[in-house]
Amino acid sequence: MPVHSSTIICSTEGFIDVHDLTSDVRKIISESHVANGTVIVFVPGSTAGITTIEFERGAIEDLKKAIERIAPQDIHYAHNVHWNDGNGFAHVRAALLGPSLAIPLKDGNLRLGTWQQIVLIDFDNRPRSREIHVQIIGE
Amino acid sequence: MPVHSSTIICSTEGFIDVHDLTSDVRKIISESHVANGTVIVFVPGSTAGITTIEFERGAIEDLKKAIERIAPQDIHYAHNVHWNDGNGFAHVRAALLGPSLAIPLKDGNLRLGTWQQIVLIDFDNRPRSREIHVQIIGE
Amino acid sequence: MPVHSSTIICSTEGFIDVHDLTSDVRKIISESHVANGTVIVFVPGSTAGITTIEFERGAIEDLKKAIERIAPQDIHYAHNVHWNDGNGFAHVRAALLGPSLAIPLKDGNLRLGTWQQIVLIDFDNRPRSREIHVQIIGE
Repeated sequence: MPVHSSTIICSTEGFIDVHDLTSDVRKIISESHVANGTVIVFVPGSTAGITTIEFERGAIEDLKKAIERIAPQDIHYAHNVHWNDGNGFAHVRAALLGPSLAIPLKDGNLRLGTWQQIVLIDFDNRPRSREIHVQIIGE
Repeated sequence: MPVHSSTIICSTEGFIDVHDLTSDVRKIISESHVANGTVIVFVPGSTAGITTIEFERGAIEDLKKAIERIAPQDIHYAHNVHWNDGNGFAHVRAALLGPSLAIPLKDGNLRLGTWQQIVLIDFDNRPRSREIHVQIIGE
Repeated sequence: MPVHSSTIICSTEGFIDVHDLTSDVRKIISESHVANGTVIVFVPGSTAGITTIEFERGAIEDLKKAIERIAPQDIHYAHNVHWNDGNGFAHVRAALLGPSLAIPLKDGNLRLGTWQQIVLIDFDNRPRSREIHVQIIGE
């Protein structure tokens, strides 16, 4: 049973920038010729995260507001005192959301809901070029 | 190393309805005859999530209150303006919790704690029939 | 494709005690001789969780404050009424963070960012000896 690894490159703006990765992940699966197995989507770095959401303007706006309630941008962050890069809020948000997602693949189909998209969320305070690793183990 | 896929059907009431899936997952593992590997539990859809908790009335009540603090039901949601289905809070809650869980399987035993159960949480605002996919890769 | 399973033992103090597991996980990978595959890090129990963060004093202090906002220690918890062990806050925090992490392994390298560490967070209200399971599937 082989292991397939591929990488998506994504240019982000930061400040809870949400990108739909679903079609990129589906393309990698198609190229892997794996029909049944597990797909891992993982973002390296400590200021971004991976989850799923209905990729719809309103839901994304609502998610941003919830994240702002949990870890507001304008409060004191000890990280900023030590490192002076001003992105303490991004570290907290990323740690709470998590960098990883595991999705089953069955008969060539990713087991997502119809209105459920795989998203990268960049929490940093500046534009970044992100690498997102997609790994498929299966047959 | 084969891939085993199975599906649990679960009737839910919504509004943070928490269901213990542990015995269903254990039954699927037993039927798979896999002793060592990884078990993925995944719920399709953008208004439900998967995690673990001690499945005890008090802890579940406490979890519901924390979720209500993070994404209250009675505030404005932009999703509701666009889609008019009134479940904006459910989308935010599901995106924050995540739809997926990976658990090691060793010598036929799921590596859960004694008081740790696998749960589906349905955040939607109406009853649903949910499919939860359980995938086992191992030997 | 073999399955490698190993366990890290970690002494914790509780009350959002954060431990860097990265070097232990890397040692287990090295001993497994697996170069490409998926690494699952899982903590059994319902009062601890696994995530990644930049393991830096300030960021950890900031994360602790965010968790205290989400599920404060000094409010009423129904779990405490039923069980009298006083750790209701720990159950809520652990359920929200989740016990599991899946990380791709490529050419012998864990696909982490430079400043991204794998951490155990113990939310309980007393010292514990924690077992963290590391499972590698690959080739």
